[in-house]
Amino acid sequence: MPIVTIQVTREGSKPGNDAVTADEKAQLIAGVSQVLLDVLNKPLAATFVVIEEVDTENWGWGGLPVEAYRKQLAQKPG
Amino acid sequence: MPIVTIQVTREGSKPGNDAVTADEKAQLIAGVSQVLLDVLNKPLAATFVVIEEVDTENWGWGGLPVEAYRKQLAQKPG
Amino acid sequence: MPIVTIQVTREGSKPGNDAVTADEKAQLIAGVSQVLLDVLNKPLAATFVVIEEVDTENWGWGGLPVEAYRKQLAQKPG
Amino acid sequence: MPIVTIQVTREGSKPGNDAVTADEKAQLIAGVSQVLLDVLNKPLAATFVVIEEVDTENWGWGGLPVEAYRKQLAQKPG
Amino acid sequence: MPIVTIQVTREGSKPGNDAVTADEKAQLIAGVSQVLLDVLNKPLAATFVVIEEVDTENWGWGGLPVEAYRKQLAQKPG
Amino acid sequence: MPIVTIQVTREGSKPGNDAVTADEKAQLIAGVSQVLLDVLNKPLAATFVVIEEVDTENWGWGGLPVEAYRKQLAQKPG
Repeated sequence: MPIVTIQVTREGSKPGNDAVTADEKAQLIAGVSQVLLDVLNKPLAATFVVIEEVDTENWGWGGLPVEAYRKQLAQKPG
Repeated sequence: MPIVTIQVTREGSKPGNDAVTADEKAQLIAGVSQVLLDVLNKPLAATFVVIEEVDTENWGWGGLPVEAYRKQLAQKPG
Repeated sequence: MPIVTIQVTREGSKPGNDAVTADEKAQLIAGVSQVLLDVLNKPLAATFVVIEEVDTENWGWGGLPVEAYRKQLAQKPG
Repeated sequence: MPIVTIQVTREGSKPGNDAVTADEKAQLIAGVSQVLLDVLNKPLAATFVVIEEVDTENWGWGGLPVEAYRKQLAQKPG
Repeated sequence: MPIVTIQVTREGSKPGNDAVTADEKAQLIAGVSQVLLDVLNKPLAATFVVIEEVDTENWGWGGLPVEAYRKQLAQKPG
Repeated sequence: MPIVTIQVTREGSKPGNDAVTADEKAQLIAGVSQVLLDVLNKPLAATFVVIEEVDTENWGWGGLPVEAYRKQLAQKPG
């Protein structure tokens, strides 16, 4: 009876996408359910998966909203 | 000071509804708060309830998005 | 497929108990699962319940650890 | 690597606002990340913050949806 | 910056084990982090995983503590 | 009525400590409750804080249990 919760920012994974697609969500669900089956022998039918999409302004990293933090990282000299 | 979090799919409970109604939410809040009072003697005023509605494409069961899994279950021979 | 998470402090509900008992946990599980059945028509077999017990020093209220806050409330003049 | 999750009702903090503003979210992120740095010496870059805004009809307190409970509190004689 | 939370009962996956082993936890972490990389192109370094082990008496299914529910399922005639 | 959940590894913040101390927990609770008051004008009495301590073997980063990942980072040439 595992429960897997996946929190990601509400963004596309490729140019042209502005959100996680339904197909990507299906792949996430299939993938993590399979991991639970492979590692702990949990039947697929016993695993729940919940995907939570979080607006980028609601996600913080480095003490900043994530988009501001990414810009800061990108500007750092190597 | 209990916190009760209720996660459900964003769907209607009856034909004609396409979401949990405000009245149903009020009943969920009243019901689970009462359980905490009855079982653990927690005053109603000390209990927080948070209802999280999850889009069906974001909910996985059986390694599939839940609507696909329900179809699969419905097609299984008894 | 609802998921209900119940967070409570790790304390007894009556004098002589220093924790939530197994019987009280069973009553919490039965009670909240019944609420989901009654209000949203969710079958008992489709509901997961997770009870999380939190040490009192890990629970804050009023800007204080909960036991300190309770003492403060108790000392307030009516 | 702390994760801080902040759940608040989807409401404005001042007359004229009907939601938490992007600037307030940035302040929440900065503030709680700083607390983790000050108290536990966790670098800002190691802390994730997730803000979850919850519709008022999905938040329960006192056995009621929170707006109904606030009205009840406001009507209580002192 | 995904966060993946895995909730499982505190049980062994094989006869002779009475808990999830450190090696199984490492496999869970590797597996789900890889899914996020494969499906959404999230770098491994950007993914946090939290495993929460829940005592069986704190996990409910079918309106019962999970061990009681499993016994009930096992006794059902085919 | 905000709820703030703080997840940290179960480790000391200084040499000689092997866990978050009760005093540090009290400072975390005071600090984040104050942030909610300062930024969103939420009264201290309306904020709940829950601190969840997670064993290091249950926390993943970089596709590895966190202690293994830290060693890997430490060995990287600058």
